[in-house]
Amino acid sequence: MAVTLVQVDFPHPGPWGDEMAAAFEGLAMSIAQEPGFLFKYWTEDREKGIAGGIYGFASRAEAEAYLTMHSARLAGFGVTGIRGLVLEVNEPLSRIDRAPVL
Amino acid sequence: MAVTLVQVDFPHPGPWGDEMAAAFEGLAMSIAQEPGFLFKYWTEDREKGIAGGIYGFASRAEAEAYLTMHSARLAGFGVTGIRGLVLEVNEPLSRIDRAPVL
Repeated sequence: MAVTLVQVDFPHPGPWGDEMAAAFEGLAMSIAQEPGFLFKYWTEDREKGIAGGIYGFASRAEAEAYLTMHSARLAGFGVTGIRGLVLEVNEPLSRIDRAPVL
Repeated sequence: MAVTLVQVDFPHPGPWGDEMAAAFEGLAMSIAQEPGFLFKYWTEDREKGIAGGIYGFASRAEAEAYLTMHSARLAGFGVTGIRGLVLEVNEPLSRIDRAPVL
């Protein structure tokens, strides 16, 4: 299966870990319903004060639509300095390196 | 299983796709042997001229050691403008969102 990745990160002062999970459980359930959504890793670096996500989508169009919507949503949360990329997966190399959901 | 992600991207003029895969097949096989390595997505955005990778490692220490080594290797290839992050995974939220290899 082809997968398109979305890579997002932004400055984040916390919460982290279980406190973050409790605050955003509803959002996580909502994200799972987005068109073309396959998976999301919720990412965090407490030392650098960075949070974000690595997502898989079933198509580039759905990945781009999600990134546009989510960037606006983050801005609405007051988040600035968002860095978001839609990335194609090089399938032959990623298969050698055992990437999931390919 | 706990997984630590490594997120790397850098300016890249090509090659892309199958040509990239042919050029870096040996490196992909080598990366699969790194300590703690779980998987790598090889990522590319031809329009923006960006390539990189999203990796899973079994521990933060192994993820950090890989990023240090790989950043030096990329610099040796003449790559500049490398952006590399070691990111913890928020497991409760990532499980809701069906992240693989957790």
